[in-house]
Amino acid sequence: MNISDSVRAGMQQTNGLFDSAVIKKGQIDALDKVYTADARILPPGAGVIEGRDAIKDFWKQAIAALGLSAVKLTTIDAQVTGENVFEVGQAELTVGDGQVVSAKYVVLWKQEDGTWKWQTDIWNLNA
Amino acid sequence: MNISDSVRAGMQQTNGLFDSAVIKKGQIDALDKVYTADARILPPGAGVIEGRDAIKDFWKQAIAALGLSAVKLTTIDAQVTGENVFEVGQAELTVGDGQVVSAKYVVLWKQEDGTWKWQTDIWNLNA
Repeated sequence: MNISDSVRAGMQQTNGLFDSAVIKKGQIDALDKVYTADARILPPGAGVIEGRDAIKDFWKQAIAALGLSAVKLTTIDAQVTGENVFEVGQAELTVGDGQVVSAKYVVLWKQEDGTWKWQTDIWNLNA
Repeated sequence: MNISDSVRAGMQQTNGLFDSAVIKKGQIDALDKVYTADARILPPGAGVIEGRDAIKDFWKQAIAALGLSAVKLTTIDAQVTGENVFEVGQAELTVGDGQVVSAKYVVLWKQEDGTWKWQTDIWNLNA
C-alpha cells in the first residue's frame, strides 16, 4: 500500500532531523526523535545494537571516527505494511576528507508518541 | 504480531532451501522458490539489484567469488506486519578456506503462489 502524504511528510521530517540535528550539529539526544525506544540498528562491522542508549553511543563514536559531516537520505521505495512503514533508501555520507560515500538502507518505521521513527535500521556501503 | 507456527515453518523451509539447494548444490534456479519475482537485494559493495534474473546472476558470481559452501540462517526476530513478515536474522557463511564469516540481515517476506519468499533482502558483515 502506498503511503499517505502526511506519513511521507513525517518520515521526511525524521530523516531530515537525523542530518540537520544529529550529524550536522552533533545533537546526539535528537536521536530520541529519530529512533523508537526499542529500536535496533544493524551496522556493518558490528553485531546488532539494541536500545536507544546503545544506539546513541554507536553514532557518537561513528560520527567522530568517520568525521561524518552530512547524511543525505533519499527514499527509493516506501510501503505501508500493517502499522509500520517499510522503507528502502539510499544515503550519501559526507566523511572527514569531504569525500561522499554512497550507501543504501532498509528502515522499518513505527509511530511512537505521534512521531514516525526508525524501529529497525540496517545499511551497507555500495562500494 | 507474532507469527504462527505454519508461517514459521514456511520460512524455515525457504531459508533451508537457500542453503541446501542454492549454496550447497549450486542450483541457482531454486532461487525461484526463495525470492519473489519482484524481489530486490541490497548487497554490500553494490547498488540495489532488482528482479530474479539479476539476483540469480549476483548469487552465481558471489558463490564462485567467495567459494561459498554453506549459509546457515537463524531468525533473531520475526513479526507479522500487514501481509508481510519482517525478519531480522543472523547468518553464518562458510567461505572458500573453510572460514566462517558472521553476518546479519533483514528480510521482508511476501507470500507468492502459496510460498513464503524474500521480497527485500539486505545484509552486512559483523566484522
